[in-house]
Amino acid sequence: MDLGLSDKVRPLVEEVRRMVREDIAPLDAEFHAEVGRHPSGDRFAMTDRQVQILKDLKARAQAQGLWNFWLTDSDKGFGLSTVEYAYLAEEMGAVTIAPEVFNCNAPDTGNMEVLERYGTPAQKARWLPGLMAGETRSAYLMTEPGVASSDATQISLKCERQGEHYVLNGEKYWATGAGDPRCVLYIVMACTDPAGAKHARHTMLLVPADTPGIEKLRPMQVFGHDDAPHGHMHIRFTDVRVPVDAVVLGEGRGFEVAQGRLGPGRIHHCMRAIGRAEYALELMCKRALSREAFGKPLAELGANYDIIANARIEIEMTRLLCLKAAWMMDHAGVRAAQPWISKIKVQAPLMALKVVDEAMQMHGATGLSQDTPLAALYADLRTLRLADGPDAVHRRQVARAELRKYSNAAR
Amino acid sequence: MDLGLSDKVRPLVEEVRRMVREDIAPLDAEFHAEVGRHPSGDRFAMTDRQVQILKDLKARAQAQGLWNFWLTDSDKGFGLSTVEYAYLAEEMGAVTIAPEVFNCNAPDTGNMEVLERYGTPAQKARWLPGLMAGETRSAYLMTEPGVASSDATQISLKCERQGEHYVLNGEKYWATGAGDPRCVLYIVMACTDPAGAKHARHTMLLVPADTPGIEKLRPMQVFGHDDAPHGHMHIRFTDVRVPVDAVVLGEGRGFEVAQGRLGPGRIHHCMRAIGRAEYALELMCKRALSREAFGKPLAELGANYDIIANARIEIEMTRLLCLKAAWMMDHAGVRAAQPWISKIKVQAPLMALKVVDEAMQMHGATGLSQDTPLAALYADLRTLRLADGPDAVHRRQVARAELRKYSNAAR
Amino acid sequence: MDLGLSDKVRPLVEEVRRMVREDIAPLDAEFHAEVGRHPSGDRFAMTDRQVQILKDLKARAQAQGLWNFWLTDSDKGFGLSTVEYAYLAEEMGAVTIAPEVFNCNAPDTGNMEVLERYGTPAQKARWLPGLMAGETRSAYLMTEPGVASSDATQISLKCERQGEHYVLNGEKYWATGAGDPRCVLYIVMACTDPAGAKHARHTMLLVPADTPGIEKLRPMQVFGHDDAPHGHMHIRFTDVRVPVDAVVLGEGRGFEVAQGRLGPGRIHHCMRAIGRAEYALELMCKRALSREAFGKPLAELGANYDIIANARIEIEMTRLLCLKAAWMMDHAGVRAAQPWISKIKVQAPLMALKVVDEAMQMHGATGLSQDTPLAALYADLRTLRLADGPDAVHRRQVARAELRKYSNAAR
Amino acid sequence: MDLGLSDKVRPLVEEVRRMVREDIAPLDAEFHAEVGRHPSGDRFAMTDRQVQILKDLKARAQAQGLWNFWLTDSDKGFGLSTVEYAYLAEEMGAVTIAPEVFNCNAPDTGNMEVLERYGTPAQKARWLPGLMAGETRSAYLMTEPGVASSDATQISLKCERQGEHYVLNGEKYWATGAGDPRCVLYIVMACTDPAGAKHARHTMLLVPADTPGIEKLRPMQVFGHDDAPHGHMHIRFTDVRVPVDAVVLGEGRGFEVAQGRLGPGRIHHCMRAIGRAEYALELMCKRALSREAFGKPLAELGANYDIIANARIEIEMTRLLCLKAAWMMDHAGVRAAQPWISKIKVQAPLMALKVVDEAMQMHGATGLSQDTPLAALYADLRTLRLADGPDAVHRRQVARAELRKYSNAAR
Repeated sequence: MDLGLSDKVRPLVEEVRRMVREDIAPLDAEFHAEVGRHPSGDRFAMTDRQVQILKDLKARAQAQGLWNFWLTDSDKGFGLSTVEYAYLAEEMGAVTIAPEVFNCNAPDTGNMEVLERYGTPAQKARWLPGLMAGETRSAYLMTEPGVASSDATQISLKCERQGEHYVLNGEKYWATGAGDPRCVLYIVMACTDPAGAKHARHTMLLVPADTPGIEKLRPMQVFGHDDAPHGHMHIRFTDVRVPVDAVVLGEGRGFEVAQGRLGPGRIHHCMRAIGRAEYALELMCKRALSREAFGKPLAELGANYDIIANARIEIEMTRLLCLKAAWMMDHAGVRAAQPWISKIKVQAPLMALKVVDEAMQMHGATGLSQDTPLAALYADLRTLRLADGPDAVHRRQVARAELRKYSNAAR
Repeated sequence: MDLGLSDKVRPLVEEVRRMVREDIAPLDAEFHAEVGRHPSGDRFAMTDRQVQILKDLKARAQAQGLWNFWLTDSDKGFGLSTVEYAYLAEEMGAVTIAPEVFNCNAPDTGNMEVLERYGTPAQKARWLPGLMAGETRSAYLMTEPGVASSDATQISLKCERQGEHYVLNGEKYWATGAGDPRCVLYIVMACTDPAGAKHARHTMLLVPADTPGIEKLRPMQVFGHDDAPHGHMHIRFTDVRVPVDAVVLGEGRGFEVAQGRLGPGRIHHCMRAIGRAEYALELMCKRALSREAFGKPLAELGANYDIIANARIEIEMTRLLCLKAAWMMDHAGVRAAQPWISKIKVQAPLMALKVVDEAMQMHGATGLSQDTPLAALYADLRTLRLADGPDAVHRRQVARAELRKYSNAAR
Repeated sequence: MDLGLSDKVRPLVEEVRRMVREDIAPLDAEFHAEVGRHPSGDRFAMTDRQVQILKDLKARAQAQGLWNFWLTDSDKGFGLSTVEYAYLAEEMGAVTIAPEVFNCNAPDTGNMEVLERYGTPAQKARWLPGLMAGETRSAYLMTEPGVASSDATQISLKCERQGEHYVLNGEKYWATGAGDPRCVLYIVMACTDPAGAKHARHTMLLVPADTPGIEKLRPMQVFGHDDAPHGHMHIRFTDVRVPVDAVVLGEGRGFEVAQGRLGPGRIHHCMRAIGRAEYALELMCKRALSREAFGKPLAELGANYDIIANARIEIEMTRLLCLKAAWMMDHAGVRAAQPWISKIKVQAPLMALKVVDEAMQMHGATGLSQDTPLAALYADLRTLRLADGPDAVHRRQVARAELRKYSNAAR
Repeated sequence: MDLGLSDKVRPLVEEVRRMVREDIAPLDAEFHAEVGRHPSGDRFAMTDRQVQILKDLKARAQAQGLWNFWLTDSDKGFGLSTVEYAYLAEEMGAVTIAPEVFNCNAPDTGNMEVLERYGTPAQKARWLPGLMAGETRSAYLMTEPGVASSDATQISLKCERQGEHYVLNGEKYWATGAGDPRCVLYIVMACTDPAGAKHARHTMLLVPADTPGIEKLRPMQVFGHDDAPHGHMHIRFTDVRVPVDAVVLGEGRGFEVAQGRLGPGRIHHCMRAIGRAEYALELMCKRALSREAFGKPLAELGANYDIIANARIEIEMTRLLCLKAAWMMDHAGVRAAQPWISKIKVQAPLMALKVVDEAMQMHGATGLSQDTPLAALYADLRTLRLADGPDAVHRRQVARAELRKYSNAAR
């Protein structure tokens, strides 16, 4: 069970790390400060400067071949293992815009995987080139305002077949990235057979973002952030028509697609969370050494040694757990990896939130403000305790897997 | 040690509660949605609708005599005890704009207390009437970007006497309320004698907000919120001149004023935090009963009974602790109440943050969004772990008081 | 809601405290060191020295009128309120044998209350005088090895009527105090109607400890302690016959008796737990001041200020919560007090265990050993998380009471 | 970084696991029940049955070649890596007497390592054969009653050179295993130069247990357990004379020996702790499935899914962290492994205590009693938070290593 950095990925990790810390981090703040400065006043319209920042950084990444790492197990990309990719995801996770610079950002990586794995040649030809070149963007429309999507069988966006088309009606929200002007594709989970068997009711469809009948109602906010220009959009579908070849894999196979998509995506999320925790710990330590009170550096006051030590211990354990989940994915398959993914899905965001919270506290009120990236990291990490299944659902999976070991014996 | 609702305050509490829940809460969301809609685009300029909302609500409160409750121990107001006021503060705390509706909001109440207690007749005459009528607003300028203000002896805003004036130079930030167009007065802690004895270096001054040389550099953000139109401003002083009669209590007595100001203010903050926790628990329970997954209401799933029970237990304990601190203030004086205030200052925000966080989790992603008040409550409560002394400083006070009981015996 | 020390109880509290700390604590260690030194080798036979220690201390307590405080609301005793008694229970709780010295120890107080409240004149005449004089002891036999007694409806000790007798068959364990040579009475919950309505199946009986057919199988251990000479006994009933007038209140009314018994008993347990926490904090502070490492007293190292502060904060909050539960008992009745009792039943033992655990850690390995009372306090407190209902059952009660506030509205 | 089971160790692990669960566990309870049944009444004298149990089990282990695994990096034993040994330690840790059955128990393994690594040929010849054959036992005498041994520079047992002898005077306690009748050797840390440089004051000596002047004062108890027949003894040295060739490595080099001894020992302790946690989780799950309340198995009640899931997550993370520390030991050396050992030393016992505590709670009062091994596991694990350095000291090491990364840059 080799969880270490392979010789193959080590130089990539080093170069990505350098680029994230030296090239991207300084521009990240500038990118976000630009939000709302478009002459139209539209926060979701990118300014020329924003466009230029992304373009320059992406060009630099591509020039160095640091691009599309997420294509694991594929001869189109680096052919990295999930473990190898995990190390890269951690480095990219430290800074908000970094994953996109390497074309490794959610939800696009997951969406591209769906196309790669389940798409017809025609579907691939239409959507993949732009996405893989980092020129277009996509969104994944799952969550709905009307039902608890922790129980995905409740998803209810109406989807009726009418001849050679499907007609969609209903609402989705928390469609991350759908606010972005470059977003051209929605992958939509819809209910084609409300009376069908629990896991055969739903169908996944590829819906062009500009299809008539689609309205972006508003951006959802996270702790007051609208996350412009990407956004988490609330979208209404009114008689939205797509041809039947927009279906992924087949009618009634939506759950299968969703499951296949989620596995690696959750690992990536968790490794990025660790990258954020590492970055927060770094900021915490620097602050603890450079700021004084009562005649001593903060590091030497109160419980600060304990706080720093606990953060370090928690980060190391969580990283190892994520690497093991990735290793299971590589060596035992998605199904066997499932309870491991549930474990990290509970652990990584909780851990990272705690570390970021302590880092904020060490910075005083500055830690809550725009003068550090901590508050934005916190808001982003907080969504991870809900996205792709809330903590409680994943704990339930872990517990049931555990109890299953003994339940046969007991009965 | 009567910690209950007195007959005198009970009807006030009931009426305030009714008004907060029925009259103010519905307008609170509208008030905040107005932010940024002023024709000037200035988020800190209030729209006509904002002005009207506040005016109407204040008029209604005044008409019912629900006004300036904070004047404890004073014949000018209701003459409420700190315990009695605590119950009112809790009710007002549930909704963001509610405290102002009753002219009981921070930092104005603390500032008015400073004027009441330490002001000269001239100082009172100039500033109190507008503040007590709820027509003007004030800010309290303590925190500075350059030093850890948890150790207030480090405060360094330069203040030099030149004839009959003081000249101020330096920067302050986190000046809550200073963004408000109605804010006319800054109470400023400045350093008049950097070489003096530790607690005699500083002086408190009353500085009109429009004094030349004062620049509002920017609003500080809390988790991305600028808290417009009140704001937490970053302010620069360049050769700002105030006459010597702007001094409160006397040169070198800044610490004395700050201490006197803080006591009751911290109790009010904590009781408002409890009000927020109660409100969050109410929202959590309603969601738990009304939302379903896996065929059951959320309330019956996972650890939700335990989460709700723990929230209830923690809220009750924290309220009792705050009431005891208030009772100590009433019956044993500020000095004896000090360690009790430190206790609640640690406990109340931490507890309330936990309850709000659980309430957010019960709501799913909606709980982080603008569709509930939870995220805004969280951001606001998070600042309380730093304002008026970070947790660590208060824990240190509590521990030292505890050890003092035995240290004489030990030596 | 007066939660303070009344004038009536204050001198009692002071005298009890003095006696516990000065007279009883030094003999407590000696009493326990005597265990196992009886010539017979029987750990449950008291040595002459043990008998003498108890006799002398009880005589002193009685001479000062410090006796049977638990008789709240009764003209036979002091007529103390539950709040008043709570303060006394706290003081007695600090030292293991102290409650018995004042004839205020569990399970005898609860058992005497059962007799007082529900006993016939004949039952009272037979059992109360010896118990109230502190000469005899009693046990309460509820828990059974075969079923989870958290759900008391499962209790299954067979009890069949045969003419003018009941015949008991089955096993009970964790019968606290039943090992004591002075224990003469068992109050036994038995199942008289297994097919009856859930809360009408059980009957409470008064069974003399020397009735033929009763066997003490073994003492249950707690963390290896057998708690001799009192013990928590595992007892077998084989055709044990008692006359029908041994029934308390009436056949099928066992639950009613059990409920009535539990209310105040839980408050007493919790207040004693607080007394133990206070004592542990005292030992922790003294150790922190007197022991050095790395050139400093332990108090100044690591997170010790925070640990001490948190202990103080938690103790104060928990005490106030217990006092409020006691006040509810006094002013709103058992039924209304029920959810308050559930709250303290969860909170007090958990809090006290945490404080004792930190005190042990501050003492190093000595803290786990016989050289401090901490390990014994820990073992004893740990049982409280299970006795009279495990934490989970009480949390469930609290949550259901909370949700009930909203459930009508929701439906 | 291969943290998995090697092909070499996998069959050993499987066989050890089988033997621990099937052969040793059933006899463990019987072994402990024998304590105190020796005709002499001496709890530290082994009964014939105890002798026989150990002899039979050891013979079986030796016959299968399952013996002295701890000799890592040595051609005398299996030549296992630290990672490989870690997996074995985990299996052996589940049951109290299991490690001794394989001659892999503390403190003997650490003591044998000291002899192996630092002993002269004569020292080895005298002591190693008996120890490696599992016929004799040894103790390690470090901790003293008079000083906080978390700061080992305070160790003060007097050791004066007189010609060709050293003369020892003073007290040691918590000498684990020194109560055992088979214990022949004490490795003693003594102070030879109180005025010397901090880490050159102490010397390690090999002292035969039967040297005149040695008195075993009493066994220290852990939560009331005396841990007979091994014991944690309090020992007094009065003019104990040993020849100068009893010194290990050289006068003044005690710290060097102590450091070298501690590294692997701490890893073994932590892996055994994980074995105990795994065993506790297994018992918890079985109980949760087999016991019912309110008409459901406990597993489906309250927060039990969450409790089980959290236990599983914590165990996996902690195991991976321990394996990484072991891997560092193997590949980067003791010095580089040091902060990793500090991390697991904090984490593993805390984690295991939490899991065992939850398992106790799931069992109700039975979980605290002699009817499960849980209470004994708890008591044993609790000592690990103090042995070989309390948590706070290890957290300090971790924090200082972390801060060092930035402190140069900051200065």
